[in-house]
Amino acid sequence: MKKLINDPQAVVAESVEGFVAAHADLVVSSGDEEKLFVSRAGGAVSGKVGLVSGGGSGHEPLHAGFVGLGMLDAAVPGAVFTSPTPDPIVAATVAADGGAGVLHIVKNYTGDVLNFETAAELAELEDVTVTSVIVDDDVAVQDSLYTAGRRGVAGTVLVEKIAGAAAERGDDLEAVAAIATRVNENVRSMGVALTACTVPHAGKPSFDLAEDEIEIGIGIHGEPGRERIPAASADEITERLLTAVADDLQVASGDRLVLLVNGMGGTPASELYIVYRQARALLEQRGASVERSLVGNYVTSLEMQGASVTVLRLDDELLSLYDAPVHTAALRWGA
Amino acid sequence: MKKLINDPQAVVAESVEGFVAAHADLVVSSGDEEKLFVSRAGGAVSGKVGLVSGGGSGHEPLHAGFVGLGMLDAAVPGAVFTSPTPDPIVAATVAADGGAGVLHIVKNYTGDVLNFETAAELAELEDVTVTSVIVDDDVAVQDSLYTAGRRGVAGTVLVEKIAGAAAERGDDLEAVAAIATRVNENVRSMGVALTACTVPHAGKPSFDLAEDEIEIGIGIHGEPGRERIPAASADEITERLLTAVADDLQVASGDRLVLLVNGMGGTPASELYIVYRQARALLEQRGASVERSLVGNYVTSLEMQGASVTVLRLDDELLSLYDAPVHTAALRWGA
Repeated sequence: MKKLINDPQAVVAESVEGFVAAHADLVVSSGDEEKLFVSRAGGAVSGKVGLVSGGGSGHEPLHAGFVGLGMLDAAVPGAVFTSPTPDPIVAATVAADGGAGVLHIVKNYTGDVLNFETAAELAELEDVTVTSVIVDDDVAVQDSLYTAGRRGVAGTVLVEKIAGAAAERGDDLEAVAAIATRVNENVRSMGVALTACTVPHAGKPSFDLAEDEIEIGIGIHGEPGRERIPAASADEITERLLTAVADDLQVASGDRLVLLVNGMGGTPASELYIVYRQARALLEQRGASVERSLVGNYVTSLEMQGASVTVLRLDDELLSLYDAPVHTAALRWGA
Repeated sequence: MKKLINDPQAVVAESVEGFVAAHADLVVSSGDEEKLFVSRAGGAVSGKVGLVSGGGSGHEPLHAGFVGLGMLDAAVPGAVFTSPTPDPIVAATVAADGGAGVLHIVKNYTGDVLNFETAAELAELEDVTVTSVIVDDDVAVQDSLYTAGRRGVAGTVLVEKIAGAAAERGDDLEAVAAIATRVNENVRSMGVALTACTVPHAGKPSFDLAEDEIEIGIGIHGEPGRERIPAASADEITERLLTAVADDLQVASGDRLVLLVNGMGGTPASELYIVYRQARALLEQRGASVERSLVGNYVTSLEMQGASVTVLRLDDELLSLYDAPVHTAALRWGA
């Protein structure tokens, strides 16, 4: 294992330390290793619904990279590929509350769901009203190594962006949660891995893939997908991903879409654009219109080579919220 | 070799096609495979100095990712790790000319320097005034596989950003070239590779690194650096890079700096922030102040794992130009 790290146990703490130093205009760290979270530099916004997300580390820029104007108020990083415990989630929830309650945006992994649930109950004892939305956009598999039901993957970024904009314009907690739910209902994803990744404290690859083999439907922790197939062309791979996603979402002629091609951490940008090219062409063949695009590393799996394709069906309100200003470390426009 | 590509010979064309489709609000492609370049969607800006850069592909987002308001007017992608020929450079130069002349920003590789020189002469025959600035910020080695003198690496992004802002505010060609030169004189970089990368049409890694070996001072094409050493901690590696950079730049107490920690394409963001943390601490130990920061993939080497550290010494004018609005696919603020 060769990595740009020091002590494998210190990866998250040191990385967060670098992150908040680099983006001190946007974020601060709680500075408490037992209750580590990242929140907006200006603190909770009075009267605004607070948005809190989090999960295992190793998926950067998710979630800390999306803290800031128009998106999250706080992000809670767990150990690599490990849910954060309830304590830091409670602390982040209290810090994010501006008096209008807090929305938890939770990727559908059993550990995350349980710990955010417990944290929500504990935060209620501290007089913070909490509502939760579970993101489960991955069409690859029902149930898997760490999940009952579908997994939450790159669609989470779009839930955070659009719900964040709803909170910023002054929607109340119920309305923000309804928007987040509507995004989740209209977003689907599926990914592929060309290579495995290595969790620092494990020191060896999470799984084995032969030199001529790829995994379709990979999870963001390397958990099994739909099938292993021989290495194929980008167009063939993209067609498998896009077809699964678009069929499940029932993309139809006239649909207006966001297309997100997400890198898993170790994939050259040039390859992501080759995937984008084919995914877009296939959507247009269905008569749909790609209104907005994101291509890059948003929800990663350490240094894994691979990509995922995410499609969100828009309506007028979702598009307007998508376009609303955002200023975070990893996503910025209009501000 | 497993990559998300189709025909290895079509990588650049297909990737550019995806890129301009994803960012159609910003850029257009020349659409001519023999004279392939990417330029601003709105065409040349009348009366503004045009900025053109380019070089081998495989370093994305450099250069096409930096075409747009406040930065480049056109970018010319060669084959992977291969300089573009003069023809597309001439075409891009003519397209970028708004009547105030064109600045070529050229990384110091022999092929790039020769081809941009030839292109400048040919463009002059078409009545475009061209001035060139060579970027040579890499302190690792004097002369190397493809270079006489120092190589041009991630500092190029800062040259393009700041010279782009000078052009946008209306500086004439001589003044924009002087600003670009001043940035180059005040910027230094050095990189490290943990793994090699594989050029698609070669099909095998550009060089070999043992499982416990890293290369300090790596070039962005995998060309040899200063030394191969046993794998070391992020802090030790960063200290080697930062010390070489800061000593060469003679960073002194009171200096105001931009610190850019650049990923080579296959490095998790978390690792880049661990490098950033140590690089910043070492600069602050010298009494310098990190005024602005960039952490991410800006000048890559396909899927290489590794990073580079770039330091730019600021003055009031360079800082103000750095902060000026920019709207490109890979860098955006204030617009």
